[in-house]
Amino acid sequence: MNAKYDELRERLGEIHDLTKIGWLLNWDQSTVMPPGGGRVRSDQLATVARLRHTMFTSDEIGSMLEELRAFEDSLPADSNEASLIRITRYDWNKAKKVPIALASNLARASGEGYQAWKSARANNNFAEFLPALETNIELRRRYVECFPEVAEPYDALLDDFEQGLTAAEVRSVFARVRDGLVPLVRHVLNHPDAVDDSPMRGHFPENDQRTLSVELLRYWGFNEEEWRLDPTAHPFAASIATSDIRLTTRYDQANLAMSLFGSLHECGHGLYEHGVSSELERTPLCRGSSLSLHESQSRMFENLIGRSREYWIFAYPILRSVFPEQFANVDEESVYRSVNKMEPSLIRVEADELTYSLHIILRFEIELDLFNGTLKVSDLPEVWNAKIQEYLGLDVPSDDVGVLQDVHWGDGLLGYFPTYALGTIIASQIWNRMNAEFTGLNDQVARGQFDPVRSWLVEHLHRHGRKFTPKETILLAAGGPIDPEPYLHYLSDKVISLYGPLN
Amino acid sequence: MNAKYDELRERLGEIHDLTKIGWLLNWDQSTVMPPGGGRVRSDQLATVARLRHTMFTSDEIGSMLEELRAFEDSLPADSNEASLIRITRYDWNKAKKVPIALASNLARASGEGYQAWKSARANNNFAEFLPALETNIELRRRYVECFPEVAEPYDALLDDFEQGLTAAEVRSVFARVRDGLVPLVRHVLNHPDAVDDSPMRGHFPENDQRTLSVELLRYWGFNEEEWRLDPTAHPFAASIATSDIRLTTRYDQANLAMSLFGSLHECGHGLYEHGVSSELERTPLCRGSSLSLHESQSRMFENLIGRSREYWIFAYPILRSVFPEQFANVDEESVYRSVNKMEPSLIRVEADELTYSLHIILRFEIELDLFNGTLKVSDLPEVWNAKIQEYLGLDVPSDDVGVLQDVHWGDGLLGYFPTYALGTIIASQIWNRMNAEFTGLNDQVARGQFDPVRSWLVEHLHRHGRKFTPKETILLAAGGPIDPEPYLHYLSDKVISLYGPLN
Repeated sequence: MNAKYDELRERLGEIHDLTKIGWLLNWDQSTVMPPGGGRVRSDQLATVARLRHTMFTSDEIGSMLEELRAFEDSLPADSNEASLIRITRYDWNKAKKVPIALASNLARASGEGYQAWKSARANNNFAEFLPALETNIELRRRYVECFPEVAEPYDALLDDFEQGLTAAEVRSVFARVRDGLVPLVRHVLNHPDAVDDSPMRGHFPENDQRTLSVELLRYWGFNEEEWRLDPTAHPFAASIATSDIRLTTRYDQANLAMSLFGSLHECGHGLYEHGVSSELERTPLCRGSSLSLHESQSRMFENLIGRSREYWIFAYPILRSVFPEQFANVDEESVYRSVNKMEPSLIRVEADELTYSLHIILRFEIELDLFNGTLKVSDLPEVWNAKIQEYLGLDVPSDDVGVLQDVHWGDGLLGYFPTYALGTIIASQIWNRMNAEFTGLNDQVARGQFDPVRSWLVEHLHRHGRKFTPKETILLAAGGPIDPEPYLHYLSDKVISLYGPLN
Repeated sequence: MNAKYDELRERLGEIHDLTKIGWLLNWDQSTVMPPGGGRVRSDQLATVARLRHTMFTSDEIGSMLEELRAFEDSLPADSNEASLIRITRYDWNKAKKVPIALASNLARASGEGYQAWKSARANNNFAEFLPALETNIELRRRYVECFPEVAEPYDALLDDFEQGLTAAEVRSVFARVRDGLVPLVRHVLNHPDAVDDSPMRGHFPENDQRTLSVELLRYWGFNEEEWRLDPTAHPFAASIATSDIRLTTRYDQANLAMSLFGSLHECGHGLYEHGVSSELERTPLCRGSSLSLHESQSRMFENLIGRSREYWIFAYPILRSVFPEQFANVDEESVYRSVNKMEPSLIRVEADELTYSLHIILRFEIELDLFNGTLKVSDLPEVWNAKIQEYLGLDVPSDDVGVLQDVHWGDGLLGYFPTYALGTIIASQIWNRMNAEFTGLNDQVARGQFDPVRSWLVEHLHRHGRKFTPKETILLAAGGPIDPEPYLHYLSDKVISLYGPLN
């Protein structure tokens, strides 16, 4: 239809191939690579990243984007073609603002920060991590300076993960969430024995856990033609193509919940990538719109569906068939309650549904203060421990289960954490809307009939990929902007049903 | 030491990363990729190949090579630096002689030829394959024209797989081999029941076959830190790095020999790549010197070692421990004899040690005639069947087990087949030399002490990688140029020992 457009698309196709190859290199490294391949793998990953960056930031792409303005204007804004040009222009302009030397320093500092963090956590020694963390933050400050138009520094960080979202918006949402959650947490703390999670504890052989996960995921469309499920240390989902989705999970033989909800979580991510329109394949639009929207899918499958009464009507017989002995004397209601145990804990990735967002909010508050200059990096452990006490009522015995627990800051990922909680919030909005739009949704879940849910999500969210901004996409999927009320109502209802009425 | 050299090496390092990434994409596709990933995988592979070609044939690389002439001359020719410059210059000049349009047509025709071959073989219909094959051959003729300096067209084809080797040399070696083998084959045909291979037939569960292969490979250095062994349809070995070696094998539950010797064969390839000096990592010298030399290693492990009496002194107890029932009443001598059954057959990849090279020689003769213009592509089936009758005494019932059996011509690989037989020949030369250089080699094999063999091969062959030409490397490893006599002696001795004296 337009030779210049075809040329742009071909170029972007090659760049996208490199993006997906980078994912495959990472997937391989985390699942099947012999450890001896690690050193050369770092070089291979760096080469792919460098080529991608060089190819994308080329002046030729800039010229094509200029030449395609008239073509873009002649098309509906929601056409694939106009969207590809528009989003690519945004990305290109942004990438051009960052000097290559800075981008390369950021990449190097990320690698070194990861190593320093790994060692510091193993040695439970924050001081060992401090210099690398200071470097990461200093480089990120210089990164922020590339975007003088932002209202406050943190906005530039957020934009990488959630385009267009501001710190002010997050601050407002999180203030409401924090105020809503803290009394619920106190209520739970006052009734520590109301819910018994012992059915999820015991001995569950890894092979059987895998069988159970795959059996359950099949109801969502998992099949060996287009999916994989592999064990790994830090679970993630990778899409190598919309028809090549690779989930990973972690098995704890003493704790069935780990893989059971981990695989559902990654399945949510996988379904999002799988559901992107095949018309967008091999373009930069062929991925989820933002990290929050991605997390809305994983959290919906893990929590709103996976920890619901209706889901366990469906899943209980399957659970029993895979683990007949372990659940011989455990009824459906006990399983439902056991997967909904709420209990403040120190480690974010092991946090329950209720306390999870508080772990995120404290990280957001700390990051904000770091970038607004009101917090020194060396004061992090002290501030961390005080917030854990304030929000969760817990003492932090040592930094390895405190400020050193997450890899993100070592990796140089700043502005990333908020998307975890925002996704959880958006999940509740989408779920409410879905419920309002068709009756009997819960009955269908109880019968294991998930096609309507999946079709709805494909139609309202997945198929769009990254055609629209995150905010536009949230409107399309959730019917309105980010709103914490449905999420707070949902949690309040659940806490009351499990832990009794609030005082 | 030299900034320009460092720059060249950095560029070549990136290109080499892409080469290895291509291998990983292929390995992934052949072992773990969900089939749904296939369509996009073709694009990803094409992108990597195109980038590699563009980056390597750039004028910058040409200029660097020119500027480095004085540096190269100042160094010993066998230094890593001089070798890298020299070999890269050879590759670069060669690549620049092929117009990009032709290179791209060859790549496309290869993909289309593969599809046509696959369908034609499934339908047992040579006519369906004919047009694609004619295109492949016509394009290869145009490729040959890029190298007007060759004595005969086939030399240009051979050079891609075995640099510097001529059709005249192969013709002379193969004539001797054919004349030496044909009487041995007749002898075997006259004693069809002399060797019983029934011990290798029966029921051997795949998991146990894998256990046996891994158990045996461990004695050669296979370990999970740097190696993998996965099932696949068409086995191969891939090195993603010298410390990341991936073997594949095929399991036939009714035939133990398939995986047993297949995995030993691929282990030979893997050890060669694993043994390349780590100083050559991430350079184009970091691979085996040629396909013949590579095949010399795989064939040595599969046949000279794997089918020897001494190997089965070592391996028999391990075989018994993995398959106690299957080998309860089979002694060591019977196992040895069963893995050495010789019997002319139609399919190359299933051929025994004796007849294998005849399968290769007939393919070489056909390819020669095609490129010398004395054979029409449409006459291939007739010529094929006549040669099978002449060399192996067999009738070809249909083309799917005749001229259509191999993928190579569909892929556009012409000039490739000879390396299979040449490797087998070189293996005997190396083995004889190794035996002459240290006594007790066979005793060590019988005791499962393979370190001396492996160290010798690393020292005389593996570590050099591609620093020298194939001919130079053959001199280093075999002590002389390609010579079929050790190979013919070896086979003659074996045939006599198993099938009785020649008449």
